Amino acid sequence: MAKDFSTRAENYAQWYNDLVIKADLAENSAVRGCMVIKPYGYAIWEKIQATLDKKFKDTGHVNAYFPLFIPKSFFSKEASHVEGFAKECAVVTHYRLMANPNGKGVVVDPEAKLEEELIVRPTSETIIWDTYRTWIKSYRDLPLLINQWANVVRWEMRTRLFLRTAEFLWQEGHTAHATKEEAIQEAERMLDVYADFAENWLAIPVIKGIKSPNERFAGAIETYCIEALMQDGKALQAGTSHFLGQNFAKAFDVKFLSKENKLDYVWATSWGVSTRLMGALIMAHSDDNGLVLPPKLAPTQVVIVPIYKNNEQLALISETANKIKTALQNKGISVKYDDRDTFKPGWKFSEYEFKGVPIRIAIGPRDLENGTVEVARRDTLEKAIYQVTDIENKIVNLLEMIQKNLYHKAFAFREDNTFKADTWEEFVDIIENKGGFVLAHWDGTPETEQRIKDETKATIRAIPLNNKLENGKCIMTGRPSTQRVIFARAY
Amino acid sequence: MAKDFSTRAENYAQWYNDLVIKADLAENSAVRGCMVIKPYGYAIWEKIQATLDKKFKDTGHVNAYFPLFIPKSFFSKEASHVEGFAKECAVVTHYRLMANPNGKGVVVDPEAKLEEELIVRPTSETIIWDTYRTWIKSYRDLPLLINQWANVVRWEMRTRLFLRTAEFLWQEGHTAHATKEEAIQEAERMLDVYADFAENWLAIPVIKGIKSPNERFAGAIETYCIEALMQDGKALQAGTSHFLGQNFAKAFDVKFLSKENKLDYVWATSWGVSTRLMGALIMAHSDDNGLVLPPKLAPTQVVIVPIYKNNEQLALISETANKIKTALQNKGISVKYDDRDTFKPGWKFSEYEFKGVPIRIAIGPRDLENGTVEVARRDTLEKAIYQVTDIENKIVNLLEMIQKNLYHKAFAFREDNTFKADTWEEFVDIIENKGGFVLAHWDGTPETEQRIKDETKATIRAIPLNNKLENGKCIMTGRPSTQRVIFARAY
Repeated sequence: MAKDFSTRAENYAQWYNDLVIKADLAENSAVRGCMVIKPYGYAIWEKIQATLDKKFKDTGHVNAYFPLFIPKSFFSKEASHVEGFAKECAVVTHYRLMANPNGKGVVVDPEAKLEEELIVRPTSETIIWDTYRTWIKSYRDLPLLINQWANVVRWEMRTRLFLRTAEFLWQEGHTAHATKEEAIQEAERMLDVYADFAENWLAIPVIKGIKSPNERFAGAIETYCIEALMQDGKALQAGTSHFLGQNFAKAFDVKFLSKENKLDYVWATSWGVSTRLMGALIMAHSDDNGLVLPPKLAPTQVVIVPIYKNNEQLALISETANKIKTALQNKGISVKYDDRDTFKPGWKFSEYEFKGVPIRIAIGPRDLENGTVEVARRDTLEKAIYQVTDIENKIVNLLEMIQKNLYHKAFAFREDNTFKADTWEEFVDIIENKGGFVLAHWDGTPETEQRIKDETKATIRAIPLNNKLENGKCIMTGRPSTQRVIFARAY
Repeated sequence: MAKDFSTRAENYAQWYNDLVIKADLAENSAVRGCMVIKPYGYAIWEKIQATLDKKFKDTGHVNAYFPLFIPKSFFSKEASHVEGFAKECAVVTHYRLMANPNGKGVVVDPEAKLEEELIVRPTSETIIWDTYRTWIKSYRDLPLLINQWANVVRWEMRTRLFLRTAEFLWQEGHTAHATKEEAIQEAERMLDVYADFAENWLAIPVIKGIKSPNERFAGAIETYCIEALMQDGKALQAGTSHFLGQNFAKAFDVKFLSKENKLDYVWATSWGVSTRLMGALIMAHSDDNGLVLPPKLAPTQVVIVPIYKNNEQLALISETANKIKTALQNKGISVKYDDRDTFKPGWKFSEYEFKGVPIRIAIGPRDLENGTVEVARRDTLEKAIYQVTDIENKIVNLLEMIQKNLYHKAFAFREDNTFKADTWEEFVDIIENKGGFVLAHWDGTPETEQRIKDETKATIRAIPLNNKLENGKCIMTGRPSTQRVIFARAY
């Protein structure tokens, strides 16, 4: 454990990186751009996975697994898809090593060259739609509601732990439908699932919206997104859901016989969230004392620390501590009783504070006499004395309160950092000096969005769903506009 | 659904392949040697995963995630490891595609060549031990008990669904210890976990043993294994656990400061099971009517099928069926009520029989009058009339009985197909004409094992743990031997 890390004010990027590494969440590996997710970080990811997986199943989806490799030729079949991913692909060209004929070690065996190169999947639309061709024959085979948990690789040049790595873990849903309407409904339903997860588990408020054409997924007709605001005023795209139209069905010739006995191409969606959510989770709530985790995703929700001078005291305290531990566990709370004698209470306090454990219970000899414990909240750093009686229900309530408080704090932060800009000067001033979400009019053209990006690094994060319509003028071109969209610099 | 598939007697290999494909478990993909695990197959794998994951956590392990790619140079660091894996590696040499300057499609961008090639992990000892170097400084950091769920790639030339595929899913445990004894204990403990899982979940009896040097994992000092016998008399290695000594610690310079303040290399184990277990599960129990699944791993444990002539009958039956469904679900049983009117009961019967659902409950109008249901067991194909009263407890008991029966049947099969051979002629006769496990004396040399393999395709599957010692003569060389070992042809 170490507090010697940057504060957010000093250097936000450094603070984030220090936090990820020193809180044992992840680290860079020997392979450029690929991270190692350490046990503590992975335990959080497992909770994210389990929660989402249940939500997917509750909405009728099943899991499957498709190959890691995609034949190169598959990429060329959907024109905008290949354009979007070709520049960042890891390519397998050989299938064997051999002893180095000129010295030590091993070299690639030139005889073992693949006839067609294989791409390590950056996303699986192509290989999956090639598979669906044989699975889908008639409307009876639809809808096909499949999800995959997998690793993917995009050869990013500048990487940051969790936020942008060459390899990352994610889930990708790939569904097939008989009608356009049904596919759009599915894309919207999964956006709702993501938004619900973000707000009620990650405790991060999100804007649901659609992407402008510039930011759309390569191969999609419409990309839906949830956008969150981080503490440094930058936006983070926390999940996307795509209506793919018939693009992939056409590229891979996937047709079905409708109820009316007509052959038609199948309608598609895809949707995904990734280990990037870990980055959002860390950045949204943590502070200069370390990690802050929402109770619903914290691997350890409560830690109990004994404060004692000798073994008799420890024995007595342990008796009470273990009773409390069992009572909490019976309520489904994950509890750790840390009675290690190799570390002092003060060290443990700052360790668990740094690791973001939502509640710390300390028990000393005085507490035993009084039938009390000291309860400290990680989110507010407040301490209070609790009577032990009915402690389990008090802790259940406190965990709920912390979960809500984190959400409300993040929500208030977003409110405080959402601005309207009506002129170009105002817009630039906010983007440069304040950050945050900027609601501004835009003339609706990709060219204007690109120019705004070139000049300010800000992009359109979302056109909010059910956006309020109002007449206005594009902040850059002055041309007419009917709605404000959300601009921000983004991760 | 289709019954037009080979019987075991006609063509065992074809029967297996037909079954995997027609029962919707998996299929070959467009990528040579890589399979698609279909939703039904993946649902079984998820149950295997969840069960094992809990067992790993109960024995003190945590999960983490390490990179998919391994720098080529890492492989050369442990001599026998590279020798074992170099010939079957997928190699990434480039990180970008570009538009084909001479025509359509995309080609590998020659400018985007990696300085050092990356190997898609065939197993992760090297990248993990390179990481452990910075994690382990003192005895306080030990033991390190980490598991990873991941995909791995071994470029196999001849592949078979689940049993041998270029890409497969698995878990790999990698642990680090302060002493040799502790590492050996860990390797043995995890072998026990695997054996317990094989016998009590997969319902497959296994022999626990150690491998002969010829069959040892590349880089291990000792390989422990569990070996199972399939219905065609061939052996299948269902899991391995390796004591790695200090080989990887030395190769990657991982030292720790002991309690006695001495620097020493760390002791290691690794252990894994893979989607191969799916192959074992399918082959061990299934029959010429299709899949047979042990209740503990069946995605659907009970299916209820209504038999009716009109909608009023269906409504009445559905009332009873839904009550039974709820009562069973309250007991933690996974139940499906199939009231689709698009398929006839007979079709449903053979569909669920083919898919291996352990229990089928049929309810017709006569049953309603009598307060009964018809219960059919998949394992024995027996049918019986049950009173509806207390049906949930009867079904709980029946599921347990089926689970045990499958194990006992497989156990009896193994007993019936385990032979002793005392001469070379006997040995060859059994291997060629009967198959099964053959207990025979061996002189203990790799050369003899190799000769036996060359002549009969049989290998030593295991030297059983706590093997009975007895004097004898090697079946091939006649040289003295102190114990029988288990020979078989193997998957």
